[in-house]
Amino acid sequence: MEKKPVEKALTGAGLRGQVAGETALCTVGKSGSGLTYRGYDISELAEKAAFEEVSWLLQYGSLPTAKQLAEYNARLKSMRGLPQALKTVLQQIPASAHPMDVMRTGCSMLGNLEQEADFSQQDHAIERMLAVFPSIICYWYRFSHDGVEIETETDDETIGGHFLHMLTGEQPSELHAQVMSASLILYAEHEFNASTFTARVSASTLTDIHSAVTGAIGTLRGPLHGGANEAAMEMIEQWSSPDEAEREIMGRLQRKDKIMGFGHAIYRTNDPRSAIIQQWSKLLAEQVGDTTLFPVSERVDQVMWREKKLFPNADFYHASAYHFMGIPTKLFTPIFVMSRVTGWTAHIKEQRANNRIIRPSAEYTGPDSADWIAIEDRG
Amino acid sequence: MEKKPVEKALTGAGLRGQVAGETALCTVGKSGSGLTYRGYDISELAEKAAFEEVSWLLQYGSLPTAKQLAEYNARLKSMRGLPQALKTVLQQIPASAHPMDVMRTGCSMLGNLEQEADFSQQDHAIERMLAVFPSIICYWYRFSHDGVEIETETDDETIGGHFLHMLTGEQPSELHAQVMSASLILYAEHEFNASTFTARVSASTLTDIHSAVTGAIGTLRGPLHGGANEAAMEMIEQWSSPDEAEREIMGRLQRKDKIMGFGHAIYRTNDPRSAIIQQWSKLLAEQVGDTTLFPVSERVDQVMWREKKLFPNADFYHASAYHFMGIPTKLFTPIFVMSRVTGWTAHIKEQRANNRIIRPSAEYTGPDSADWIAIEDRG
Ligand SMILES: CC(C)(COP(=O)(O)OP(=O)(O)OC[C@H]1O[C@@H](n2cnc3c(N)ncnc32)[C@H](O)[C@@H]1OP(=O)(O)O)[C@@H](O)C(=O)NCCC(=O)NCCS
Ligand SMILES: CC(C)(COP(=O)(O)OP(=O)(O)OC[C@H]1O[C@@H](n2cnc3c(N)ncnc32)[C@H](O)[C@@H]1OP(=O)(O)O)[C@@H](O)C(=O)NCCC(=O)NCCS
Repeated sequence: MEKKPVEKALTGAGLRGQVAGETALCTVGKSGSGLTYRGYDISELAEKAAFEEVSWLLQYGSLPTAKQLAEYNARLKSMRGLPQALKTVLQQIPASAHPMDVMRTGCSMLGNLEQEADFSQQDHAIERMLAVFPSIICYWYRFSHDGVEIETETDDETIGGHFLHMLTGEQPSELHAQVMSASLILYAEHEFNASTFTARVSASTLTDIHSAVTGAIGTLRGPLHGGANEAAMEMIEQWSSPDEAEREIMGRLQRKDKIMGFGHAIYRTNDPRSAIIQQWSKLLAEQVGDTTLFPVSERVDQVMWREKKLFPNADFYHASAYHFMGIPTKLFTPIFVMSRVTGWTAHIKEQRANNRIIRPSAEYTGPDSADWIAIEDRG
Repeated sequence: MEKKPVEKALTGAGLRGQVAGETALCTVGKSGSGLTYRGYDISELAEKAAFEEVSWLLQYGSLPTAKQLAEYNARLKSMRGLPQALKTVLQQIPASAHPMDVMRTGCSMLGNLEQEADFSQQDHAIERMLAVFPSIICYWYRFSHDGVEIETETDDETIGGHFLHMLTGEQPSELHAQVMSASLILYAEHEFNASTFTARVSASTLTDIHSAVTGAIGTLRGPLHGGANEAAMEMIEQWSSPDEAEREIMGRLQRKDKIMGFGHAIYRTNDPRSAIIQQWSKLLAEQVGDTTLFPVSERVDQVMWREKKLFPNADFYHASAYHFMGIPTKLFTPIFVMSRVTGWTAHIKEQRANNRIIRPSAEYTGPDSADWIAIEDRG
């Protein structure tokens, strides 16, 4: 008997289905189109655009001209350096730290050193974060893990290439740079997801942009959100065959465990980002001669649909794709940050342009009233 | 002609009046009682309890016995020290930084050094933050402003006393310790205000507690929220008489400026915290022989009610009270953090105990669809 797709409870807890504000940036799950950024379909963007082009689109509202894009790229390239005080801070963070804690702290420290004094500086602060986040994570990673102090001012043309270059010490292949660009496009923006919503709530008090982005990073860290790509990787790499994967998944489903990388708060039948990164993952699998991880991933995908009508979200095939490019699992979610900072900051600008402090109400479930008891009479 | 109190628009933007979840911690604006923590009226708590007692109440659900409170205080006293790596980080932050950026970074760095590995560690992590936040802000402040490396492990009995001691180098007077305790009680908890809501959205992805608190600090920083006490101080200290204050306020109202320290998202006719801190401020004014700041504050209060039916919120009389105790204006909002961390973390525990990811929807206002244009054809 066929199971029906999971019924989404679009009410009640978690503000699911409740409108919390307006946006012109993105549609998620609108029938037919799936996912659009400023009206452009995600498949077309992932195929034809560069990540920096999409970032411009999100930030400034239209596709850039060749001249605008060249100037934007040049600005971003010139902003990759780390201030000495920030390097010193990153050096204090042990290798055992969670890389998302490093990103959060790096962003927060940047706000101390390069404070957004007023909102007229927001675009500059945003470009700086976009340019410097890859430097922050790679500087810390290479210093704490390999004892190497890397140069973060590279000549790479793209943000994705810059990241891979700093991480491996080598210029990335054409294919790898291409996959990184597509991946960053897929992760760039996603309406009122939990981290973006955090950024908007924060921005609604008219706080500075580093505060709002720092908060968003901390939210993205959670395993129900950005942390899912790492959790998916840790799961699939345990299995040495599709059959083993199937047995293990069946067991987990029986135990009512959540399978990371599956399901979505808004999409009902599929996540349009998944097929795109799945294709890239497949190509990378062929290139590295993988005969395990990709087949395991596909089997998990099949079993989840067959058993629960749950589909892979953006995170699931990202796990294998990143792995095939040699990226350490613990850096998966920081890559998400390098990309989503474009969406977060575009939302912060929207919030600022038409602001009312975001302050909902709560349903009270505590005692009606309580009478004071002197301390000697308690117990 | 009498003006009516501001009509609260309890709908629409900013999720005003919309229920975003449940809480047993607090009621705000419920008729009759004004503000309660776990059923206890704020006036009674501010009069009879110590801040640490209120913190226990929020965290553990009931008033502590004498033994529980003694043990709690002893634990908190023992946790005031700063790890060397955190000191090094604080030393990198210039005197020109915003103290809330320092708090945010200090909390974030703590999360790297003392990671909450799983939720069973939450109470320990919370007590540590409560104990160490005053140390973080005072260590940075005295180092960056006076070049002094202070000892943060003091013998003071209370958190408020500990803070004043580190700040001034002297044991605080009985009166000052008492005002600090009352002030910390008033700021401890306030239902789904913007910073607390940030903490809950963040926690709903099952992220770690330092991420959620770091996000809340960044949100509290904004001038529409915690930043209002500093903004109020900067305003009132400009005026040398009540008449000058009245003229200036009238001008600002005519220009439709927002007056910081007035109005509230939920309360309609008064903020029950204001009268309490106003009394303390009055007493402190007498004690220091003030003949300007307090009369100016009272006049602003009268004019705002007369002209706009707007009332002082918790922040307004806090400004003069803190000032009379010799606290630098830029440290006002960090004190708010030292207190509200109790409420934030109690909410994080509630969210974790009954979680669904907080992921609202948005009303889309952008273009229906857009067609890709090759880069050479744009412009
Ligand atoms: C994304 C997610 C948080 C959405 O949460 P949500 O909107 O509250 O979830 P839903 O309303 O769709 O859940 C419906 C049902 O499907 C189940 N379900 C959802 N995702 C599941 C998963 N990945 N594995 C197993 N069961 C799942 C839920 O437990 C729920 O079952 P119940 O009604 O018996 O409690 C959730 O699907 C999840 O936790 N996925 C795994 C983490 C992940 O991949 N996150 C990245 C998102 S891009
Ligand atoms: C607290 C605050 C953010 C609440 O926001 P809100 O719920 O969106 O505000 P309201 O719905 O009560 O506003 C109603 C009207 O009163 C006006 N108003 C509210 N607070 C005001 C103030 N402090 N000074 C002047 N006018 C004010 C608003 O501008 C609005 O007028 P409008 O209808 O002409 O636009 C708001 O009162 C404010 O900005 N106060 C100053 C900052 C402050 O003290 N914050 C600390 C809060 S504890």
